[in-house]
Amino acid sequence: MQQNLHILNKSEIIKVLSVYHDGVTTAAHTNGNKFGGNLSILFRWKRSVYQLLWKHMIIYAIVFISLSVLYKYLLNEDGKKNFRVLAEHCTGYSRSINLMIMLGFFTSTAMQRLFTMQTTIPGTAKSITLFISSLKSDIPEGPMIIEQFVRWQLLSWILSFRLVCRPLKKTYPDLFSLEAAGLLTKEERNALEDHEKSDPSTPRPLVVIDWMLLLLKETFLQNRFFMDFNYLKNVDILMAYKKSCGNTIKFATQNISPALVQAVILAVYCFGCVTVMARTFNNEENTPIPDALIAYLPLMPAMQFFIYFAWLCFGKAAVDPFGDDEDDINVRELVQSHITNSQRLKGLYNRHLADVFPNLVSLFRCFVYVST
Amino acid sequence: MQQNLHILNKSEIIKVLSVYHDGVTTAAHTNGNKFGGNLSILFRWKRSVYQLLWKHMIIYAIVFISLSVLYKYLLNEDGKKNFRVLAEHCTGYSRSINLMIMLGFFTSTAMQRLFTMQTTIPGTAKSITLFISSLKSDIPEGPMIIEQFVRWQLLSWILSFRLVCRPLKKTYPDLFSLEAAGLLTKEERNALEDHEKSDPSTPRPLVVIDWMLLLLKETFLQNRFFMDFNYLKNVDILMAYKKSCGNTIKFATQNISPALVQAVILAVYCFGCVTVMARTFNNEENTPIPDALIAYLPLMPAMQFFIYFAWLCFGKAAVDPFGDDEDDINVRELVQSHITNSQRLKGLYNRHLADVFPNLVSLFRCFVYVST
Amino acid sequence: MQQNLHILNKSEIIKVLSVYHDGVTTAAHTNGNKFGGNLSILFRWKRSVYQLLWKHMIIYAIVFISLSVLYKYLLNEDGKKNFRVLAEHCTGYSRSINLMIMLGFFTSTAMQRLFTMQTTIPGTAKSITLFISSLKSDIPEGPMIIEQFVRWQLLSWILSFRLVCRPLKKTYPDLFSLEAAGLLTKEERNALEDHEKSDPSTPRPLVVIDWMLLLLKETFLQNRFFMDFNYLKNVDILMAYKKSCGNTIKFATQNISPALVQAVILAVYCFGCVTVMARTFNNEENTPIPDALIAYLPLMPAMQFFIYFAWLCFGKAAVDPFGDDEDDINVRELVQSHITNSQRLKGLYNRHLADVFPNLVSLFRCFVYVST
Amino acid sequence: MQQNLHILNKSEIIKVLSVYHDGVTTAAHTNGNKFGGNLSILFRWKRSVYQLLWKHMIIYAIVFISLSVLYKYLLNEDGKKNFRVLAEHCTGYSRSINLMIMLGFFTSTAMQRLFTMQTTIPGTAKSITLFISSLKSDIPEGPMIIEQFVRWQLLSWILSFRLVCRPLKKTYPDLFSLEAAGLLTKEERNALEDHEKSDPSTPRPLVVIDWMLLLLKETFLQNRFFMDFNYLKNVDILMAYKKSCGNTIKFATQNISPALVQAVILAVYCFGCVTVMARTFNNEENTPIPDALIAYLPLMPAMQFFIYFAWLCFGKAAVDPFGDDEDDINVRELVQSHITNSQRLKGLYNRHLADVFPNLVSLFRCFVYVST
Amino acid sequence: MQQNLHILNKSEIIKVLSVYHDGVTTAAHTNGNKFGGNLSILFRWKRSVYQLLWKHMIIYAIVFISLSVLYKYLLNEDGKKNFRVLAEHCTGYSRSINLMIMLGFFTSTAMQRLFTMQTTIPGTAKSITLFISSLKSDIPEGPMIIEQFVRWQLLSWILSFRLVCRPLKKTYPDLFSLEAAGLLTKEERNALEDHEKSDPSTPRPLVVIDWMLLLLKETFLQNRFFMDFNYLKNVDILMAYKKSCGNTIKFATQNISPALVQAVILAVYCFGCVTVMARTFNNEENTPIPDALIAYLPLMPAMQFFIYFAWLCFGKAAVDPFGDDEDDINVRELVQSHITNSQRLKGLYNRHLADVFPNLVSLFRCFVYVST
Repeated sequence: MQQNLHILNKSEIIKVLSVYHDGVTTAAHTNGNKFGGNLSILFRWKRSVYQLLWKHMIIYAIVFISLSVLYKYLLNEDGKKNFRVLAEHCTGYSRSINLMIMLGFFTSTAMQRLFTMQTTIPGTAKSITLFISSLKSDIPEGPMIIEQFVRWQLLSWILSFRLVCRPLKKTYPDLFSLEAAGLLTKEERNALEDHEKSDPSTPRPLVVIDWMLLLLKETFLQNRFFMDFNYLKNVDILMAYKKSCGNTIKFATQNISPALVQAVILAVYCFGCVTVMARTFNNEENTPIPDALIAYLPLMPAMQFFIYFAWLCFGKAAVDPFGDDEDDINVRELVQSHITNSQRLKGLYNRHLADVFPNLVSLFRCFVYVST
Repeated sequence: MQQNLHILNKSEIIKVLSVYHDGVTTAAHTNGNKFGGNLSILFRWKRSVYQLLWKHMIIYAIVFISLSVLYKYLLNEDGKKNFRVLAEHCTGYSRSINLMIMLGFFTSTAMQRLFTMQTTIPGTAKSITLFISSLKSDIPEGPMIIEQFVRWQLLSWILSFRLVCRPLKKTYPDLFSLEAAGLLTKEERNALEDHEKSDPSTPRPLVVIDWMLLLLKETFLQNRFFMDFNYLKNVDILMAYKKSCGNTIKFATQNISPALVQAVILAVYCFGCVTVMARTFNNEENTPIPDALIAYLPLMPAMQFFIYFAWLCFGKAAVDPFGDDEDDINVRELVQSHITNSQRLKGLYNRHLADVFPNLVSLFRCFVYVST
Repeated sequence: MQQNLHILNKSEIIKVLSVYHDGVTTAAHTNGNKFGGNLSILFRWKRSVYQLLWKHMIIYAIVFISLSVLYKYLLNEDGKKNFRVLAEHCTGYSRSINLMIMLGFFTSTAMQRLFTMQTTIPGTAKSITLFISSLKSDIPEGPMIIEQFVRWQLLSWILSFRLVCRPLKKTYPDLFSLEAAGLLTKEERNALEDHEKSDPSTPRPLVVIDWMLLLLKETFLQNRFFMDFNYLKNVDILMAYKKSCGNTIKFATQNISPALVQAVILAVYCFGCVTVMARTFNNEENTPIPDALIAYLPLMPAMQFFIYFAWLCFGKAAVDPFGDDEDDINVRELVQSHITNSQRLKGLYNRHLADVFPNLVSLFRCFVYVST
Repeated sequence: MQQNLHILNKSEIIKVLSVYHDGVTTAAHTNGNKFGGNLSILFRWKRSVYQLLWKHMIIYAIVFISLSVLYKYLLNEDGKKNFRVLAEHCTGYSRSINLMIMLGFFTSTAMQRLFTMQTTIPGTAKSITLFISSLKSDIPEGPMIIEQFVRWQLLSWILSFRLVCRPLKKTYPDLFSLEAAGLLTKEERNALEDHEKSDPSTPRPLVVIDWMLLLLKETFLQNRFFMDFNYLKNVDILMAYKKSCGNTIKFATQNISPALVQAVILAVYCFGCVTVMARTFNNEENTPIPDALIAYLPLMPAMQFFIYFAWLCFGKAAVDPFGDDEDDINVRELVQSHITNSQRLKGLYNRHLADVFPNLVSLFRCFVYVST
Repeated sequence: MQQNLHILNKSEIIKVLSVYHDGVTTAAHTNGNKFGGNLSILFRWKRSVYQLLWKHMIIYAIVFISLSVLYKYLLNEDGKKNFRVLAEHCTGYSRSINLMIMLGFFTSTAMQRLFTMQTTIPGTAKSITLFISSLKSDIPEGPMIIEQFVRWQLLSWILSFRLVCRPLKKTYPDLFSLEAAGLLTKEERNALEDHEKSDPSTPRPLVVIDWMLLLLKETFLQNRFFMDFNYLKNVDILMAYKKSCGNTIKFATQNISPALVQAVILAVYCFGCVTVMARTFNNEENTPIPDALIAYLPLMPAMQFFIYFAWLCFGKAAVDPFGDDEDDINVRELVQSHITNSQRLKGLYNRHLADVFPNLVSLFRCFVYVST
């Protein structure tokens, strides 16, 4: 398995590292506003709102300007009158529609749900650490059992997130890809496939969690825990892990209804269409500069539309946080860090403090001899 | 019981499976917006907002257009004047009423309550797994006891949800239907019915939970737990399960008041009636095209009404999440997955890791012999 | 005690039952909207918003119409002019005031607080069940001790809720009424009264909880728990129960300030007064029908006022959920169900699984004999 | 110490009692609205919104009326014109500013934070009760140890709340006042002062909690717990208590920023200044009554300002709940009830159920003899 | 190490102390409003909203006044006309844009997230106290082991917060600075650097937590816990600590998207540009005073902009609470208080109650001798 893991290219590891540097970077950027740094936030491009909106911005500007050109140069007097009536009708409606409240509730509801989910996302470290700590320390088969437990923990984690995260589904399209990545042995793949034939309705992560329960039981029966009490404790923690997997799947499948997302998108697009048509005509003659500005630089009508559109994007990103976007939770990185983490934790069983800090431990012991 | 369970038709199992595929599909659809995919969301029909609203949309359009026809072709000058006055009165009010705030608070309150409930919905897996793990592993009557415990767990779950979920009530209208489904023996049905006669005020799930408590006590007294400590732990977990059943029932019965739902519906319908009448009349002559558009294509007045109406629907769906709608929690599927889950878990008691992975376990043991 | 409890009339038990049927009914009604059922919700009377508002509606209509009559038939030209100026002044203000935001925040804050409270309301079942399960199973005085513990648990619950719930205060106005209901012996009443004389500042529920602590200690000292560990566990659960009693009392006494409720009521009533006076006068002549409609059918001005008023009512109901209204938490029913529940749970100590399902248990035992 | 406590005057004890009576009273008042009781709420003065606002109301009215007088009687034609232009400018702005949203978010954020804090406010009863229950029951020095533990618990509570609550700081301005109140011995005061000299950065409550940890250790080492397990359990509960003290201090010190409170106050006062100037002038002649009403009875412009002002007051009260206002948490009463509570709990160690209910316990014992 | 810690200059300790005094001060200031103290809040400068906004205020005023000057004195008739048209266009838009809703949702979402984070910020006291309490009390190497554990706990805390907090990163730019501060030995620094070479993807805090796990294991294996049970308990608490470190890092890295912050800043700045241009022109002649006021004292247009801007600042401060601002969480002070705290706690192991209160303990013991 370790060889396979080593194949994972370096670029990914660098990415993992960059999370931590990014964290600091982000904080630095956001906080810069007290030192004239608001402007530096405004003119950033990477992970910016412009990146999110520029395509829509350009289409909006083109449509707006061509409608202005149409009105000024192509329509005859009657057409102009018709255009004016329509434009004023649109203006009236654009002023009476206030989407911000709807978008505010939509986005903040989605975000609060996301924040709650973030703190309850399942982790593998706790159950692995406690399993390792629960074992008797001197049993020779210990490392093998731990190896098994850790791999199954990772496997169940990945199988759970494959159900909700498209990019991970692409990385591991089937069981063979997991086998190739060293997360699954051939024997286990067969067991999974056999199970699927006999009982197709059970989701795969549950089958793997069953294996872990059997492993815990085996460990208990063979008297490998240093206390009997540890068995139920480990079962408890495993059930908590299963529950938080289930909550993550629930988050993704029983989320804000797609119809609601659709309704919000529809409303924002309709509003965009209305504002692109809406315009006011000033009655004073001979004001060529403002007339041109108003007709060909749709700054003001665009502004409100783009506030709405940006807000919609953030809401949608919060509804589906496991995607490919830059602001989404990078599940592939998460998998990677869970793998390296578990590799490290596995080492804990055989390592002793003396291996890392030989002086320290001998100091402890010295002390005992001296004082006794 | 197993035979009975097997009768449950295949189509339901496929549905259970589809939850997981759906999950991924939904995510895929929602996330598609970064690749021009907003449009693909807009033009979906399945589980769409159009499906929710089309009937109301058509009625709205018909009424609006017939009022326009009435004004243009059927009324005399005086009637027209009266109509105009009324329409302008309505327009004035339609602009001053802003229902969005009310709907926003209503829907987001209902949704947050729903999301909280979703994570605390009672599950059967934890108590079953812990009961199985708490038993001594070698007792011959073990499987029978587990069979009993598991069935009662399922029974109490279903009896609880029958109180709040209409579709489940339809599936299992009475105790006989539960007996037919293999979830209840004749003896138990009699016991339930006897209890109801002597003490009609106790809800049935509580009676079943009492049986489980008696079963735990019997198990404890007969010394079937591997530690005395396990008895109270199992009682604890059962009480937590009971509490979360109670919370779900509270959610459904002490929910947002029906009067509030009624008030919100009333407000939205009133607003609809006002906007269907409200119209503005432009003063410029000779603008046939916009006049016709405004009179016969009620896009703009309809838009705000339908935003409100959609929001109302989402709020109502969040108030009552156990119904028959596509976005509701499918309790029948949940029952099904709880049944299959518990069947699988029951198997854990008698199975050993060696049954699934014979090589692995012998490897562990080898290792011990070699090293000792 | 049992005799006393039996005196509680049947009608109350039927009410308890109806909670469960109501639950389903409510769900049914609310969900019916997908089948043209929105209308059925609109035209319901029981527990409706109309029931809440009809008195105010009628007064509002009478005042509005008499003002219209006053303007049309009783005032001279000067009076009419004065009236018009005032009415337009009011109209101007009625449009600029938007109470919905205030009401939205008020009601949703009150509701979220209520929902949180609902899930943390203290229950008696957990501590009773765990106490019963913690006892050795064969001690002859067991039932008496349990009887004592259960009664005190109920007593402390009722004494706590008497502090916050007016209807319960009416049902049990003093200690004698509790004694009459069989919840208190004469000896205990004297002890409570003595305590009140020597230490008047201690709330009564705490005194009862002290008795329970003493009972737990006595049980521990007399070695009646099957494990020493059980003593602290029971103390723990009792303290958690006490804490949730305290939280409920805090909810009712340190709630949303009465001044805030007053401010909100004041604002809504002022708005009502303004809209009842506010009216617009159309300038076109000869439109008798809309003039009459606008003057004598105050549908539109009333609508917004009644949305506000309804919202206010829901907020107030959420601020004080222990009252007499139909949507309030029915504490009297709760008491009743706690009493019947505890009666049932008390039975658990002496009952064995064999009493309920003799065949089942003998089957278990058979199995053991056969296999051994 | 008991003597000292007895010095606390009776009026305070009556206040403590009144909390409970108040609770019921408040509930009664709030709920009265279904019986024409809305009016009774409106016309209450005690703890009313009028009490909060009357000073500002009077100043507002005086300024408004004097501006009206200025306009009508003191200004010449030019001055009137200037006044009118300014007033209309103000009117325009007063209509476009909607502070309610800001105030709604401000107040509801502050309130939700307050409600969360209320349920996590540290209590002394749990750790005291568990300490008492953890001790062996027959040790002679038990009462002294408990006396010590209880006093330190109270001391740490009071020292913590002195950091956040001004009124408590006034009651106990220094260590001598605590010593005088019997909460601190001279030896302890010296120890606290010595510690402050050697390590001035440690907050005092932590020093007292250290003493309690030492007391727990002493108790453990002298084998005074009935189980070894009790030691860590007591440490655990003490750490949870410390954490909730820390959370309360965090609540008060890392709260909503004072700059935000300032910004909100500024906005409301600005709005008040604008509305006091803003007025509309009707164009119709000869309407003396409404003109006088509008000019000298600033009901309508005042209303919105006072809604805002009231909302601001509630927000500020929620930001700083430990003050002297009637709606604030009365920390002095809390201290008092913690003291009486702990006095009562201390009694538990030496008391037995037989002391309170001699008949009952002898009955239990009889029963045993009879049955054996 | 102690020497190094003592080098930390006195000014920092005074700062730590001032937190507690500040707490009281803040509360005092905020609460002062009931005694005419609203004004005292309004005119404070320290930590005020003016401090936050004055630079922007001045720029805004300069631009506004120079545009007024431009219009009045520099433009010819045509230019004036153009200017008027543009200004009225801007006025129209400035009235239709309501950013408050967006800002309200943005800031309250950010604040609620921050408040949640504040209560879950990791602390070192609990795990240190429990580790000390878990050890046997008479082992000679105890203090050394505790010294080790405490230093690693602090180290992991600081390494975690270095990832999210820029000021801390400045204080401790690399491992050498930590070594210089006495938080890291040379041996440990080498171990950290070696680990980084072999496994660059593991964040440093995790490596230190691994060491602590090894230390716990060593302590368990050498039988230094007074109960076996303590081992898993300590592992549990350490994992909880690790989880809350992880949550804090998640809070900072998976926070509200920078694009959202950017969008909000953009919207507020656009609004500022629009209002600086927007102005109304009164039609009445000869009103020099209001004309001058309106043109050169941009009070009213500025007010709304500055409400928005202030709100934006509070939102940004809540998004990034680990910065250098006065309202931010002062992580450097936190580090300092964690260090002094842990120093004090370390003392607990060797100290006995008798060391602090010799009389008290001898009194306890006396009591025993007397009574036996």
